[in-house]
Amino acid sequence: MRDSPATQRKLEDSLRHIVNLLEKHRLVERMVDRDQVSPRHELIESLVHRQHLVELQLKLRGLHPADIAYILEALPLDDRLLIWRQIQDDCGGEVLLEVSDAVRNSLIETLEPPALIKVLAQLDADDLAALAEAIPDAVLAEVSQKLNARDRDWLQTTMAYPETVVGHLMSQDVLMVRADHRVEQVLRMLRGRADLPHNTDSLYVVDIRNLFKGVLPLRALLLNDPEARVADLTLTDQVVFDPNDNASDAARAFQRYDLVSAPVVNERGKLIGRLTVDAVVDFIREESEEDALNMAGLRGDEDLFAPIWDSARNRWLWLSVNLCTAFIASRAIGLFEDAITRIVALATLMPIVAGIGGNSGNQTTTLVVRGLALGEITPDNTWHLVFKELGVGLLNGVVWGATVGVFAYVLYWNVSLGLVMAAAMLLNLLLAAAVGVAIPLVQHHLGRDPAFGSSVLLTFITDGMGFFIFLGLATVFLL
Amino acid sequence: MRDSPATQRKLEDSLRHIVNLLEKHRLVERMVDRDQVSPRHELIESLVHRQHLVELQLKLRGLHPADIAYILEALPLDDRLLIWRQIQDDCGGEVLLEVSDAVRNSLIETLEPPALIKVLAQLDADDLAALAEAIPDAVLAEVSQKLNARDRDWLQTTMAYPETVVGHLMSQDVLMVRADHRVEQVLRMLRGRADLPHNTDSLYVVDIRNLFKGVLPLRALLLNDPEARVADLTLTDQVVFDPNDNASDAARAFQRYDLVSAPVVNERGKLIGRLTVDAVVDFIREESEEDALNMAGLRGDEDLFAPIWDSARNRWLWLSVNLCTAFIASRAIGLFEDAITRIVALATLMPIVAGIGGNSGNQTTTLVVRGLALGEITPDNTWHLVFKELGVGLLNGVVWGATVGVFAYVLYWNVSLGLVMAAAMLLNLLLAAAVGVAIPLVQHHLGRDPAFGSSVLLTFITDGMGFFIFLGLATVFLL
Repeated sequence: MRDSPATQRKLEDSLRHIVNLLEKHRLVERMVDRDQVSPRHELIESLVHRQHLVELQLKLRGLHPADIAYILEALPLDDRLLIWRQIQDDCGGEVLLEVSDAVRNSLIETLEPPALIKVLAQLDADDLAALAEAIPDAVLAEVSQKLNARDRDWLQTTMAYPETVVGHLMSQDVLMVRADHRVEQVLRMLRGRADLPHNTDSLYVVDIRNLFKGVLPLRALLLNDPEARVADLTLTDQVVFDPNDNASDAARAFQRYDLVSAPVVNERGKLIGRLTVDAVVDFIREESEEDALNMAGLRGDEDLFAPIWDSARNRWLWLSVNLCTAFIASRAIGLFEDAITRIVALATLMPIVAGIGGNSGNQTTTLVVRGLALGEITPDNTWHLVFKELGVGLLNGVVWGATVGVFAYVLYWNVSLGLVMAAAMLLNLLLAAAVGVAIPLVQHHLGRDPAFGSSVLLTFITDGMGFFIFLGLATVFLL
Repeated sequence: MRDSPATQRKLEDSLRHIVNLLEKHRLVERMVDRDQVSPRHELIESLVHRQHLVELQLKLRGLHPADIAYILEALPLDDRLLIWRQIQDDCGGEVLLEVSDAVRNSLIETLEPPALIKVLAQLDADDLAALAEAIPDAVLAEVSQKLNARDRDWLQTTMAYPETVVGHLMSQDVLMVRADHRVEQVLRMLRGRADLPHNTDSLYVVDIRNLFKGVLPLRALLLNDPEARVADLTLTDQVVFDPNDNASDAARAFQRYDLVSAPVVNERGKLIGRLTVDAVVDFIREESEEDALNMAGLRGDEDLFAPIWDSARNRWLWLSVNLCTAFIASRAIGLFEDAITRIVALATLMPIVAGIGGNSGNQTTTLVVRGLALGEITPDNTWHLVFKELGVGLLNGVVWGATVGVFAYVLYWNVSLGLVMAAAMLLNLLLAAAVGVAIPLVQHHLGRDPAFGSSVLLTFITDGMGFFIFLGLATVFLL
């Protein structure tokens, strides 16, 4: 059994130890490179060199695959590949399962097909399904040829489901019992096994045709008389998922009902798999990280130590979109260059109107996105929400419009300028509230992710319209 | 047993049904208000009225407390309180546990102390500890008086730990066994119990002084001969938490090692509690939601249907900070009003330089914040990261600087203006990369949340310096 460093502190100690070993290793390598003349010296160095590698391998062998994954993620690319080569044949498959998408790609890229096939052969069908998207088709086809017929079927079944539904996340390790058995028989059946599938907190009761009848919690086996009948202990009102259920909804159900595992049953009532809390926790983490990255305008998961070129490309999509919107918004200013030439203070004040509008609109969008994610926004309460956000926008517009107006007046001793500033602020905050609610709702209505790109689109509107409203009002009332 | 609607679809159906009943209820109420003259009519209305309430209560009684919590969150304030009054005496305590912080406050505010005490009396010490922060001190003191001595101690112990450590999240329901017992004895002990604590996947082995010896998985009881000794089946290398361990680190350990529950052991080796996956999943969700709200400049959890005044106040802190930074940044423009009067194109182009800088810096900050949260950034690789981000900034600066320069040239047929624009863009993107790495690292170094306010601070610098660099270069080279 590998020891499991529980705390982050211990884990960081392991990382430091490994970095230390790597440094020694590289130091020796560099000395050997520099000093190739003396064969005797070389021999000693080579021995020291090998000794460090052995120490490194020993250290790595004591780590849980998830911890090795953490260490790989925290290492720059060349160190990462050195470690990877040490462990790939030992627990490479499990490590691939645990690393982030971006780091996984960096590891898979370095492997020739035969080496990759060897690594993947360490995994079962459930794990292969989880990795399938990262593996080249030809390799996947060859690996699945080596599975037995049942596993091959399973791999094809789960891969056929999109990544966002329960069917893609479920596992095939299911313990089934018959309703007409007694607890004693079930216990005897269990004692015949070497182990239980991970996260097994219940067995599933089926009839002779594998039709799902209910759930038999392990606790029921432990708490009841061995003579009791399974049928009498079976719970029939437990949460059951369909393979086509949305994975986010399933994750919320796990959280809501504090589940450890739940059966997956198809539309004909047949038990086909099991969803477990570890898959759900991973899904929640990945989903929330992806949201955070998307909000910041990153296309997807980015390896912290990716090559500069790859990193830059990951950021170009949103930077280029942002560049286009910034140019278009700046054309709103271009329309009023004449006004700016006459009252240069307009140029100084206009970014304030635009900036606060964007900020306030983003607050609204974030709340609406979360409300949609939690299913709290329904056709019945949408208008209530719209009026509330417009009310908040109006109140904020009056308060901050007045503040900004006074400030503009104090700076330039011009009452009309202060009034125009206040009015523009009020109008832009109302617009920000309306657009901040509308963008995620419309995206949701069109079946898209409500968060995706909403911040860029919102800022575009609050910037462009902020400039337009402020400079337009100034042209009408100040010139 | 309540039935548990598994899918989001079923849950939304329940919500729709309840909204429907509420509408009927209000319709009747309004008719009664309008038409108070006919006593006979009134009687009928009152009967219909009562019938709707009964139907509502029946519907609510069939729902899981977590589902009622969902429904309360999705209802506007007055409807929410109507439902709350129907259920508070039945399962109000459990519902309070499940709702979001903001909605919980809206419910607790409506209760007089005696009513609140009655609701809280439905809960055990673990649950009270989870709610403690939301309950007025006087009420909490009175409720804890009604607990037995052991539960009162427990409540005080867990409340003494800050919200961000394991001690605050742990529960006291722990099943202990002695190492010198046999499986048979343990099974007999379990059969004497009515139920197991939730999420029990293992028992904890202790010696006579309650010192923790190891973990006995339930599976070991099921898979092994009843004659086997507990000591031989005990796992001693399992993950163990200290009550002072950081809750985020513990959450990551649960995810990394796929845990369902883990023992909490104090520094003297005494078993004091248990951390379960449901508490961890709730913690992960809350943490990621809080991050998302903080990033958008919301002070904390906001009820989707809070009164306008409360909502506006929740947003003022960051709006006012943003207002100050926007004013200061705008003073950078004020310095160059003379230059703008002479070349008005500068006013049109300057928001582009500032905007793209902010966008690009935010991408960097988001990646660094995530790297810090996952513990992937260490003193050893910090410089590697800084150089990489500067490299990405340089590459992006050359590419997008050239693009923007060409665009400015095409718009105004002025080569020098295009060159100044390109140079300003390059410098601002380099600055954005440096500041984007520095802000979260410095905050982390000072022991603060690296994400907190980082986006506002970053935008301030990229805006202000973007204006300054662009207008300064223009003054030097174009005037």
